[in-house]
Amino acid sequence: MALGEFDLIRKYFTRPTPKAVLGVGDDCALLRPRSGMQWAVSCDMLVEGRHFLSTVRPERLGHKALAVNLSDLAACGATPVAFMLALALPRVDEDFLAGFAQGLFGLADEHGIELVGGDTTAGPLSLCITVFGEVPTGLALRRDGARAGDALWVSHPPGGGIGDARLALEVFRGHLALDGADFEAVRRAMEQPQPRVALGEHLRGVASAAIDLSDGLTGDLGHVLERSRVGATVAVDRLPIGPALARQPRALQRECALAGGDDYELLFTAPPDAADRVRAAAAAAAVGVQCIGRIDAEPGLRLLDDTGRALPRVPRGFDHFAGAAGG
Amino acid sequence: MALGEFDLIRKYFTRPTPKAVLGVGDDCALLRPRSGMQWAVSCDMLVEGRHFLSTVRPERLGHKALAVNLSDLAACGATPVAFMLALALPRVDEDFLAGFAQGLFGLADEHGIELVGGDTTAGPLSLCITVFGEVPTGLALRRDGARAGDALWVSHPPGGGIGDARLALEVFRGHLALDGADFEAVRRAMEQPQPRVALGEHLRGVASAAIDLSDGLTGDLGHVLERSRVGATVAVDRLPIGPALARQPRALQRECALAGGDDYELLFTAPPDAADRVRAAAAAAAVGVQCIGRIDAEPGLRLLDDTGRALPRVPRGFDHFAGAAGG
Repeated sequence: MALGEFDLIRKYFTRPTPKAVLGVGDDCALLRPRSGMQWAVSCDMLVEGRHFLSTVRPERLGHKALAVNLSDLAACGATPVAFMLALALPRVDEDFLAGFAQGLFGLADEHGIELVGGDTTAGPLSLCITVFGEVPTGLALRRDGARAGDALWVSHPPGGGIGDARLALEVFRGHLALDGADFEAVRRAMEQPQPRVALGEHLRGVASAAIDLSDGLTGDLGHVLERSRVGATVAVDRLPIGPALARQPRALQRECALAGGDDYELLFTAPPDAADRVRAAAAAAAVGVQCIGRIDAEPGLRLLDDTGRALPRVPRGFDHFAGAAGG
Repeated sequence: MALGEFDLIRKYFTRPTPKAVLGVGDDCALLRPRSGMQWAVSCDMLVEGRHFLSTVRPERLGHKALAVNLSDLAACGATPVAFMLALALPRVDEDFLAGFAQGLFGLADEHGIELVGGDTTAGPLSLCITVFGEVPTGLALRRDGARAGDALWVSHPPGGGIGDARLALEVFRGHLALDGADFEAVRRAMEQPQPRVALGEHLRGVASAAIDLSDGLTGDLGHVLERSRVGATVAVDRLPIGPALARQPRALQRECALAGGDDYELLFTAPPDAADRVRAAAAAAAVGVQCIGRIDAEPGLRLLDDTGRALPRVPRGFDHFAGAAGG
């Protein structure tokens, strides 16, 4: 017999919320902000077929749904505190829910955060998570702080790079084939990204601007440039590329790394004399960082290859209505 | 030519956010909690065909989407501060967006709150709003504060009642017909509910427990009874009934008022000596209130008609997976 909505919520999504004043099960959750802290809030909606494929394992979907939201907190240098989950399901599917909850709470526990409320309803599979974080007043990383002369940095997995999620998507789309180990590696990058929360925290007071890579490097960088009213030069051959993508043709490497999307690494700027502090932040967070260019006073984005030649075309970021428009 | 996602967001959903430290357009919004305040947060997801009909005017949908969330804040006695909107749209439809934004911001402006962020994506029409409110520490209305001997109250529109939204739904389902004026009145109740924010604020320190009526009176009352570990007796003939519903057979009146759902009135308890303070709160908020019963030490819910006879069956609240299960 199918469980009702309230039973479902209780069984899979009610857990202790010691940090909240009042957690799941009332009209609102009650949270107690700490003095001296600002609140960072963000929400992302994920729709089946658009943000994830029907073939994804529920554990990984639960992980990713929270990860993409934590990545927004990371980009602000905020420390995650709590989250809310709204879930539309076509039917009550306990196997799905059990797996989803396992992935979701696995990542939540890694970050010591609580599910404090939400909503469950029937509908086409989609989910919306809102995250709450805190950051000391005035120390949030923003998109509008990049200054001409700043160095441009991107984080990456230790021993890995950016663009792997896009490479995996190309395989799912049938555009190319990878051997089993390479496919498993890039598929994991797509389905189980690691939000760079610790790096964001360590970059408070170090980075001048930051954004997370969700729509592709050139598109996301464009947001920073626009908000900061500056331009940038990117050395495309300095982009960190992981082993699987490195075995692909150079044109595909560049497309995946520049316009891929779904990387959830941090793209950030820092004054040129802060390189040691950036590397120390990365070491403390156990992630890699690579300097990939600089911020210019002149507007616009310039891409240079390793011979110093300007690349003619800037791939655009992913637009959730227009589809991928990479070059 | 279709607008891209970022253009869409800018055109309809970017407005000044003077209260936020940082509003729409960064990875997170930054909010500055005031000292002495707790934060109340809630989110609701609305899916086409489940929470609203495809025939609803976009203006009313925009209103309702925010109203149901503000109603959760009202039930906690919280003062709304800000909200986030995640919107999945099957296609870029400017007429829809313009109307939706008009209804949404119309209600937001009534309550002096700001849209501080969100997400827009392609997908089956659904939306998820997260609201943030503040309430002085320790004064939030909760579900778990009802005590034996408390009076049970329900709010209602001046000159109106509860159950109208359910009556409208019965018309949309083809189960009955109403004359034009009655239909317009109950349709407006269904499509454009008024969240009882001012009443919730005035009930701080007066009400012992509160919940908003979203799933039907008996179902929502059940949540209060369960959390407070008490029972209740409801005098069903004291339920406030509006003019359109009053012209229907008594059995239908009771079903709509007891198990209707989508009322967004406040159901609350208060000590028996607080009746004058309850009426003063209602007067200050310009809404009606009706005492409809009492809280009992004995668990369970008892329904009595005006002759003192117990009604044999308690209609259940609405379950978003099981469908309406009213008796």
